Amino acid sequence: MHQQAIDKAKAAPTHFDMQESFVRQLDARITHHLSQLSPAPARLIDAASDAMGSGKRLRPYLLHLVAGDVADRDAVLDMAVALEMVHTASLIVDDLPSMDNAMLRRGRPTTHARFGEATAILTAIGLLNHAISIANGVAGLADGQRGALVSILSGVMGWQGLVAGQELDLHGFSDRDGVDDGPLDRITRINALKTGALLCAAVEAGAILGGRPDAERSLLRRFGEDLGQAFQIADDLIDMLSDSAATGKDCRKDVGKETYLAVYGAEEALRRCRGLLASADAALVGAGLSPEPFRCMIDAIFTPMLDRVPQAQAASAAR
Amino acid sequence: MHQQAIDKAKAAPTHFDMQESFVRQLDARITHHLSQLSPAPARLIDAASDAMGSGKRLRPYLLHLVAGDVADRDAVLDMAVALEMVHTASLIVDDLPSMDNAMLRRGRPTTHARFGEATAILTAIGLLNHAISIANGVAGLADGQRGALVSILSGVMGWQGLVAGQELDLHGFSDRDGVDDGPLDRITRINALKTGALLCAAVEAGAILGGRPDAERSLLRRFGEDLGQAFQIADDLIDMLSDSAATGKDCRKDVGKETYLAVYGAEEALRRCRGLLASADAALVGAGLSPEPFRCMIDAIFTPMLDRVPQAQAASAAR
Repeated sequence: MHQQAIDKAKAAPTHFDMQESFVRQLDARITHHLSQLSPAPARLIDAASDAMGSGKRLRPYLLHLVAGDVADRDAVLDMAVALEMVHTASLIVDDLPSMDNAMLRRGRPTTHARFGEATAILTAIGLLNHAISIANGVAGLADGQRGALVSILSGVMGWQGLVAGQELDLHGFSDRDGVDDGPLDRITRINALKTGALLCAAVEAGAILGGRPDAERSLLRRFGEDLGQAFQIADDLIDMLSDSAATGKDCRKDVGKETYLAVYGAEEALRRCRGLLASADAALVGAGLSPEPFRCMIDAIFTPMLDRVPQAQAASAAR
Repeated sequence: MHQQAIDKAKAAPTHFDMQESFVRQLDARITHHLSQLSPAPARLIDAASDAMGSGKRLRPYLLHLVAGDVADRDAVLDMAVALEMVHTASLIVDDLPSMDNAMLRRGRPTTHARFGEATAILTAIGLLNHAISIANGVAGLADGQRGALVSILSGVMGWQGLVAGQELDLHGFSDRDGVDDGPLDRITRINALKTGALLCAAVEAGAILGGRPDAERSLLRRFGEDLGQAFQIADDLIDMLSDSAATGKDCRKDVGKETYLAVYGAEEALRRCRGLLASADAALVGAGLSPEPFRCMIDAIFTPMLDRVPQAQAASAAR
């Protein structure tokens, strides 16, 4: 018995192993879906494959964790690919010359830097659209569930999602946009649209595929929202305090933008980021999900980001 | 009896009246759907409203004619708005500085000329996405029918639709794109993707909403395809032979592009355009649809376009 317990502990995969295994399956499914794009123009497929070729796969893994083991494996993988396509398209759009004009992303040339602006725009539209097509065709679901998945994706992209967030981020709020409660309100709203919406979409799609009860949904939504706010603050901290070699993308693109960091300073931003992560964790526990794999994933993302902040501050002060 | 017949003839609305009446209803529905975009950023709504504010409404009217009187009125109007949103978004994208770089469309400044490139791109994505959202929520349909409408829209935008057509139009075919049957094959394929696909989508969505039998579908598809090819040739003729004052958009943007007109000359293009319209008409009659309102609409579009060609040729020869 004792030896058996040791063997079992040895053989039990860690959360890190499970995440790695999921990402491998996801990458194979992404390759499969990209192969379905033919006979689209080869150059568009090249651009889409290049853009989809790397990434933390955070949103797909969140979907997978929330959906849990009861969900249909193929349905989870397909919807995970759809979410990653929407995320990738939003990065292509953000990086365009008329937007952030970024040349580097994930340590490699951005899509427009490599394939030109027109092809980058068409690739982003193609990916957004293909994500809808995948959600609309997820196998093994009732039609109503497919409709709900399509609705989640079109919601997250659109006028109350990524497109709105990007417009406000670029051009600010006008008098007609009804936001007059100061910088915190404006920053929170943009971050919710640009980052929180897609994390919430991953969580909500997971809840549908996993058949989670409606009572859990509002807590799961809060988990996604808090995680999104925390993620954006951490991203701003890294952008401000690091260099491109460390982040794999153009840095200090946010100079002059109204971010939590710019308004409240690094120490307060770090404090708020940790507070949001604690709130996200409480929502998760409240929703009755086993928090361990989520905590493992969140630690793996945030700890290296947040640990770098005091070092960078110290280095910056010493210069 | 005789007087009654005269009164009836007087009172009977013409096809032109019926088209006008439909377009009025459609415009009201467009206004309704645009009002639903709030609380999106006001600037984005302005850009969307401006772009959607005019147009021939050809695709919505085609949908309406194919759907017929048996179809649910609200479902037809909603889907008609969705089609017009996709069409408008495709024009915004075509006109972008990185694509055709056009400053004039429908006699007014293009979206990027008026609102800037970034907002134009975001508006186009927002409209494409909202079209999906409308199709996914059309009332009074079975879930499976809604799924079919979403599938039609995502098909027409995507990798085997508008995005592919625009990429090939801008950058041409590569060796890997499997088109080596000469210019006619290349031109036909680009026109099918850029123009035919959306006309076919209108016709197919009309067939679904009108509950048309499957047996009619392939003839209706041929009608849409032929009409699309004819429309693109007529558009190329007008682009080459007219000026911006007559067309309401930038002219001679196609110089150097491989079009039917450029390869075969104006007379042959005119002949082929008329042949395609005859073929479209035969498909329509074959599908058992009452052809009169379609003919009336097609005449109203094509006659002024095609009549201008010989005049413009004569004027051009006299210069």
